[in-house]
Amino acid sequence: MEYRIEKDTMGEVEVPVNAYYGAQTQRSVNNFKIATETNRMPREVIEAFAYLKKTAALTNCELGVLSVEKTELIARVCDEIMEGKLLHEFPLVVWQTGSGTQSNMNVNEVIANRAHVLGGGQLTDAHKVLSPNDDVNKSQSSNDTFPTAMHIAAYKMLEEITIPGIEALRDTLQVKSEEFKKIVKIGRTHFMDATPITLGQEFSGYVAQLNYGLRAIRNAQKHLAELALGGTAVGTGINTPEGYADKVAEKIAGLTRLPFVSAPNKFESLASHDAMVETHGALKTVAVSLMKIANDIRMLSSGPRCGIGEIHIPENEPGSSIMPGKVNPTQCEALTMIAAQVMGNDVAISIGGASGHFELNVFKPLIIYNFLHSARLIGEGCRSFNEHCAIGIEPIPQNMEKHLENSLMLVTALNPKIGYYKAAAIAQKAYAEGKTLKEAALESGEVTSEEFDAWVDPHKMVGKTD
Amino acid sequence: MEYRIEKDTMGEVEVPVNAYYGAQTQRSVNNFKIATETNRMPREVIEAFAYLKKTAALTNCELGVLSVEKTELIARVCDEIMEGKLLHEFPLVVWQTGSGTQSNMNVNEVIANRAHVLGGGQLTDAHKVLSPNDDVNKSQSSNDTFPTAMHIAAYKMLEEITIPGIEALRDTLQVKSEEFKKIVKIGRTHFMDATPITLGQEFSGYVAQLNYGLRAIRNAQKHLAELALGGTAVGTGINTPEGYADKVAEKIAGLTRLPFVSAPNKFESLASHDAMVETHGALKTVAVSLMKIANDIRMLSSGPRCGIGEIHIPENEPGSSIMPGKVNPTQCEALTMIAAQVMGNDVAISIGGASGHFELNVFKPLIIYNFLHSARLIGEGCRSFNEHCAIGIEPIPQNMEKHLENSLMLVTALNPKIGYYKAAAIAQKAYAEGKTLKEAALESGEVTSEEFDAWVDPHKMVGKTD
Amino acid sequence: MEYRIEKDTMGEVEVPVNAYYGAQTQRSVNNFKIATETNRMPREVIEAFAYLKKTAALTNCELGVLSVEKTELIARVCDEIMEGKLLHEFPLVVWQTGSGTQSNMNVNEVIANRAHVLGGGQLTDAHKVLSPNDDVNKSQSSNDTFPTAMHIAAYKMLEEITIPGIEALRDTLQVKSEEFKKIVKIGRTHFMDATPITLGQEFSGYVAQLNYGLRAIRNAQKHLAELALGGTAVGTGINTPEGYADKVAEKIAGLTRLPFVSAPNKFESLASHDAMVETHGALKTVAVSLMKIANDIRMLSSGPRCGIGEIHIPENEPGSSIMPGKVNPTQCEALTMIAAQVMGNDVAISIGGASGHFELNVFKPLIIYNFLHSARLIGEGCRSFNEHCAIGIEPIPQNMEKHLENSLMLVTALNPKIGYYKAAAIAQKAYAEGKTLKEAALESGEVTSEEFDAWVDPHKMVGKTD
Amino acid sequence: MEYRIEKDTMGEVEVPVNAYYGAQTQRSVNNFKIATETNRMPREVIEAFAYLKKTAALTNCELGVLSVEKTELIARVCDEIMEGKLLHEFPLVVWQTGSGTQSNMNVNEVIANRAHVLGGGQLTDAHKVLSPNDDVNKSQSSNDTFPTAMHIAAYKMLEEITIPGIEALRDTLQVKSEEFKKIVKIGRTHFMDATPITLGQEFSGYVAQLNYGLRAIRNAQKHLAELALGGTAVGTGINTPEGYADKVAEKIAGLTRLPFVSAPNKFESLASHDAMVETHGALKTVAVSLMKIANDIRMLSSGPRCGIGEIHIPENEPGSSIMPGKVNPTQCEALTMIAAQVMGNDVAISIGGASGHFELNVFKPLIIYNFLHSARLIGEGCRSFNEHCAIGIEPIPQNMEKHLENSLMLVTALNPKIGYYKAAAIAQKAYAEGKTLKEAALESGEVTSEEFDAWVDPHKMVGKTD
Repeated sequence: MEYRIEKDTMGEVEVPVNAYYGAQTQRSVNNFKIATETNRMPREVIEAFAYLKKTAALTNCELGVLSVEKTELIARVCDEIMEGKLLHEFPLVVWQTGSGTQSNMNVNEVIANRAHVLGGGQLTDAHKVLSPNDDVNKSQSSNDTFPTAMHIAAYKMLEEITIPGIEALRDTLQVKSEEFKKIVKIGRTHFMDATPITLGQEFSGYVAQLNYGLRAIRNAQKHLAELALGGTAVGTGINTPEGYADKVAEKIAGLTRLPFVSAPNKFESLASHDAMVETHGALKTVAVSLMKIANDIRMLSSGPRCGIGEIHIPENEPGSSIMPGKVNPTQCEALTMIAAQVMGNDVAISIGGASGHFELNVFKPLIIYNFLHSARLIGEGCRSFNEHCAIGIEPIPQNMEKHLENSLMLVTALNPKIGYYKAAAIAQKAYAEGKTLKEAALESGEVTSEEFDAWVDPHKMVGKTD
Repeated sequence: MEYRIEKDTMGEVEVPVNAYYGAQTQRSVNNFKIATETNRMPREVIEAFAYLKKTAALTNCELGVLSVEKTELIARVCDEIMEGKLLHEFPLVVWQTGSGTQSNMNVNEVIANRAHVLGGGQLTDAHKVLSPNDDVNKSQSSNDTFPTAMHIAAYKMLEEITIPGIEALRDTLQVKSEEFKKIVKIGRTHFMDATPITLGQEFSGYVAQLNYGLRAIRNAQKHLAELALGGTAVGTGINTPEGYADKVAEKIAGLTRLPFVSAPNKFESLASHDAMVETHGALKTVAVSLMKIANDIRMLSSGPRCGIGEIHIPENEPGSSIMPGKVNPTQCEALTMIAAQVMGNDVAISIGGASGHFELNVFKPLIIYNFLHSARLIGEGCRSFNEHCAIGIEPIPQNMEKHLENSLMLVTALNPKIGYYKAAAIAQKAYAEGKTLKEAALESGEVTSEEFDAWVDPHKMVGKTD
Repeated sequence: MEYRIEKDTMGEVEVPVNAYYGAQTQRSVNNFKIATETNRMPREVIEAFAYLKKTAALTNCELGVLSVEKTELIARVCDEIMEGKLLHEFPLVVWQTGSGTQSNMNVNEVIANRAHVLGGGQLTDAHKVLSPNDDVNKSQSSNDTFPTAMHIAAYKMLEEITIPGIEALRDTLQVKSEEFKKIVKIGRTHFMDATPITLGQEFSGYVAQLNYGLRAIRNAQKHLAELALGGTAVGTGINTPEGYADKVAEKIAGLTRLPFVSAPNKFESLASHDAMVETHGALKTVAVSLMKIANDIRMLSSGPRCGIGEIHIPENEPGSSIMPGKVNPTQCEALTMIAAQVMGNDVAISIGGASGHFELNVFKPLIIYNFLHSARLIGEGCRSFNEHCAIGIEPIPQNMEKHLENSLMLVTALNPKIGYYKAAAIAQKAYAEGKTLKEAALESGEVTSEEFDAWVDPHKMVGKTD
Repeated sequence: MEYRIEKDTMGEVEVPVNAYYGAQTQRSVNNFKIATETNRMPREVIEAFAYLKKTAALTNCELGVLSVEKTELIARVCDEIMEGKLLHEFPLVVWQTGSGTQSNMNVNEVIANRAHVLGGGQLTDAHKVLSPNDDVNKSQSSNDTFPTAMHIAAYKMLEEITIPGIEALRDTLQVKSEEFKKIVKIGRTHFMDATPITLGQEFSGYVAQLNYGLRAIRNAQKHLAELALGGTAVGTGINTPEGYADKVAEKIAGLTRLPFVSAPNKFESLASHDAMVETHGALKTVAVSLMKIANDIRMLSSGPRCGIGEIHIPENEPGSSIMPGKVNPTQCEALTMIAAQVMGNDVAISIGGASGHFELNVFKPLIIYNFLHSARLIGEGCRSFNEHCAIGIEPIPQNMEKHLENSLMLVTALNPKIGYYKAAAIAQKAYAEGKTLKEAALESGEVTSEEFDAWVDPHKMVGKTD
């Protein structure tokens, strides 16, 4: 590969001749060869930086500290980044400096160099039209830009992928819950037969879980909407013009059409990432819900001949390389693996969030990497589960009826009539002697056949179903 | 020990002769000898059951399914339990059935037997005035009472211990933040010298963290305020009278003076514990904040001669059994250990929360045990830290001044004047040659002495401090 | 309460008049009112301190730095502590200083004061026969005694409770595996019907899991057997006589009959607790195994009428307060809750273990508290599960046979005969048309009735079963 | 894109016209659009499959169930895969079926189709030389191949990346420990000044930690060396020829030159992943060690003017985009972020490992993904930290000397001479009055100047340093 020489405050560095990035990016490439194939700084963070750099330049211009010409150049390159044109110019990995300084400088360098070329210059020119630190990074520090980019990237992904995914699944489950509202089946507690429930009621619980999860995310987003920008190096806002913080937050809100505001306390915004910890706590709650839901569906559809078999899920792929004709609940499996991943990511984020010192938390790349991972997995996992599984769920009435008929727990309806203890004796008799509940009840002498039929009606045992 | 014979639907059991509990409690004692000394079912859960059993009886009476006489007896024993009089009658451990059925029956049995004695009967009487299942447990199931007791116990502890503890610490830090608002000191990022900040600003970040944490708890409490009671066995409300669920929730709210309501979807309330998972996520966020705060205070007070030494914390105990005169940040240590515990408890709760099947989550005792543990630790830990540490924090001005004078990062103020690159050269020169920043700046020829003094004034570098 | 005045290097403190503990213990009582009812420093740690203090005194005596008289007094009180006589003299909680200094001083004070009384003195005497720091703590520091007590307590509990509990369960499962070795049943993968297996084979997997877990614990115990004692304040062994460390470790090994040795690197022993982290990692592996095993048994025994129902487990308690006659897999529930707790404790221990600074880890009480919690839960949980569940597991042959007959996955045996693709078509046909596998196979024309019976024999599909 | 039609047992699928993969791979592509950019099935797993498929074919051939011609074709394509030639043919993501069936079929399809082309055929030929299921997958199931590939990939990465990385860092720290063995400095406990230690002793603790970590990995590798292959669908080995399991394990051992053996209990190997859980527990222990080590180095090098500043680490990059001349401990930051990630991954793996049902754990892709992530991060993180930080660590003698002179904890040396209590009074006096220890000691009248100099010599307080 051919190189050119780039300089920073520490001296000269060889950089690929056509790269827009410069010395500091290259130093990071050289110094952090860790999981280079798989752990690039997420492109959502780079894109968020583009929003941020453009609005910062516009604000600087408006406040009179950056020329119109420079501002336009910066904005133009930022637009290119947002369009995804320069992705290969951002080679850095997550495992770099904990402030994300190197990725901030990567963006600064690419903007400065690309702007120079757009303006007709050469990458090898000694003097460039923009300085990465003095112009592109004006009124900024890595310490406030990186957390701002974290919040923008996180918020956007929640809006674009996570929440829509959860909502789509929630909507399908809601439809199913309505569809199944009159289908009476045996309930199960402790994985054991219990009193009846409708399949619709069972699904309504899933809907409720997801609705609470969505509310928890929405609650946390209020903190996430607060941006660190304007705090610069340590939160004091050194080297920013008057009014900068509020104005730039407003512009970011305008550009992204998301309700961002300037964080009222910048010291908190740089030194902690409780907004990420709190919001990921909500994502983890959703993961916990999804684990339950997907497990239930896996188990309800188990069989086809030797399981519970009360619902049928779509057959999407041959399930086995050795067992012909086997079909498996593969979407449930993907979703439960995702839930486990999010629960693990939560620990990584919490440890990172707890490990800041003084004015700066330096676990920033770790935190945003895990956050975006979880947010995408939940969103895309829900969408996949919805489209390839939930939408196609069908009841298997004959199995549900068979279970309902066999069950002994309908005896519960006799409690108010003959008391818990006599009812228990009937159930135990039926179990021990392999009889139906009615047979045992009649033999007990506690109820007549008419009474039994009137009192022990599963359809009356499920409460209101409308 | 002397025994009497008690019976349940499975047969006879030997019970200590004077125990108010009965056969089912004794079965659990016999069958679950696990951590019996240290892991009793938390007394807050027992107390919550007393609230619940009393209000359930009152509601049953009001709805015409329980006699006034029985209701009064139940209420009377519940009052005794709430007063803490019968604690030794609840010997069961956390590691029992996952629905908490045995603890529910423990409460039912104690109420029934104690009521019988209060009514002048003998524990050995064949017939008792109350039936544990048919009377005390009327319109109830373990599956809705235990989660209801979980929410009551959790909500109450948050209100009585957790939130007041956090608020007390927050208030002290707020006062300190005001007190210290003009004390300029060096900032630190990456654990390295950075630009100045005031000690008050630093503390304001802690205040903000705790305020966000409190808001997160408050947000989650809305879910926690929803009670499962009325769902009975599987969420359908089998064997409850019309109107029961809303009415009993209202009575619980009245008795506890807390904003409890009946859960709109009882299937979710029995089968999942997302409310606990979500709320504990907020507690974990607070733990993450406390880890940061306590670490900062530990490190800022380090020394006394060979550390950072910018603040002084109260000397509460001799710090070492071998090093005479040593004093340690012991409250910071307790608080950071607590933070680690809460982060661990969060994983236990999440796994428990994710592991429900069908109509019931059977990790209930695990979940409430860990929740109450965390809620108490945070509340009492904050209170202890507040009273024995935070309140007594004092600045050590001479050390802060010395650091401020020595620091090279004041050079940042020169960026807008001479640019980042020349400023960097000055800082590097000062560092390499062991000079002060001013010496190096003057030697660089970039600034005059007057300019340096005017531009590089740490008190101007901390932004607004009012 | 009546008090006497005690002094330490910080001044006077009021102590309950008859307490053997002194000023420093009382300071900790006053300063750490956190979870005082439930989170006492585990008595196993106190007992371990008694071993340690006695052997330290004997070693000091042997090396000529402590008189025979003082040594005997110390040993005498230590014996009392080991016998459990002075438990109420150790009121401190886990949430104290992170070095455990206060618990070390608690032990030192109790020994000094109790010895004084044993020697005929009064607690109010101005001069005592022993000095807590100069005599009882001679050649010691909290920094080496507390980690030594941690290792003694942990190792002992593993030997006395954890390992025997796991082994008892393993032995029962081994017996069951033999008993069930010829019982052919349907296998299940993805929770779906698969090819046959014997019940004994299924159980042999559980046995293998526990054997690997036991080996993992044994491997880690090698690190746990290394004792910090002799490192004193920072690992250098300041204020210890020549030869002390090895000699005292030898005496501890002799007294406990466990293979303790002096740690070759005392700096590691004080500053990190990787031995605890590593060993708890093994406990967590066992917890993971137990979760799988208990879940399988819960699900295999599900029903009685609407589940899988292939095994029967003991009926230990009435399972429901509302559903008469219900029986639940309560031991499985306790064990899986325990598994979740251990997985949470693992995170707490890891965070604590990762958080040491320089010469000392100050998360020691947190670490040993969680370790002992897990070690006891696993040991007693396995014992309980073994005695009240595993021992009584019985096959339900009729259900296994029914499943085996119905299953379609026996078709796998046709792969080598007619190929995977034709076999799949047969299985799909049987499923779609609700037929038996044989019916579908014959209709396909690929096999004759004789061939089918010869090839598709579940008893030939389970491999070697001896 | 152009497509061709491929078929599997479920019907026809459109596949990119030149893709070697077939219908089942395409179904998975279509059905699992989850994190497709970033979460591909790790290429190490694909490579491990190539080892496995080749040796399985060779074993099948040797045992007479596969022709030499087919065997050679399979082996030839496997060699290509091992050479990394066909990576783009493996488009599947981690979030697929939990058995990894789809990745197994992806490999089977690519081998079959590529072999057909190598043999001169066309991808569109109706009949191919090899059948993915009947030939390439002969004597195999996803259920035994995927876990075998997991173990091969994990073991290889431990040997090639993880262990060498840890060892390289360990070796450097060992060299530093020797180099620094006579450099006396203040020790720190509770982040507070303590008695002296040498810098070499401090580093020797790090060396010990890593050595224990390496031993823990080695211990666990014994379990990891056991291969599931030969268990096929449920562990019984259905459809394998006599002797197959041992022979194929031997061949894998030969080809990889790693000590693989056939697992003695195949039921455990399919249904659980305790070997992965156990081994990752060891990786997590190493992560815990690295967190401590990197934190210490970060803090020891803190400053340059307002921190501890006892060591100097290499200056690799400009540390701040706003603070000129700033240098940060960036390698420490990357390494501690990695430690947090591994601790999070551990939870994901544990949950996955605990969640198997009956004959199969279906969290396999999750588990191997996290395992390889951690193993790579630790290995490459240690290497990076070693090369760019540890190797360049230098002491800063003047700061260490200054701290040593100022410290009060040298007073500990007086304990055996004048007792702990008088020594404490001297230290307290020095602290309160801002004096040196010697001044305070002389003023106390307890020691003479000569005694002080003789007794309080930091170089005598560090024990043996050879």
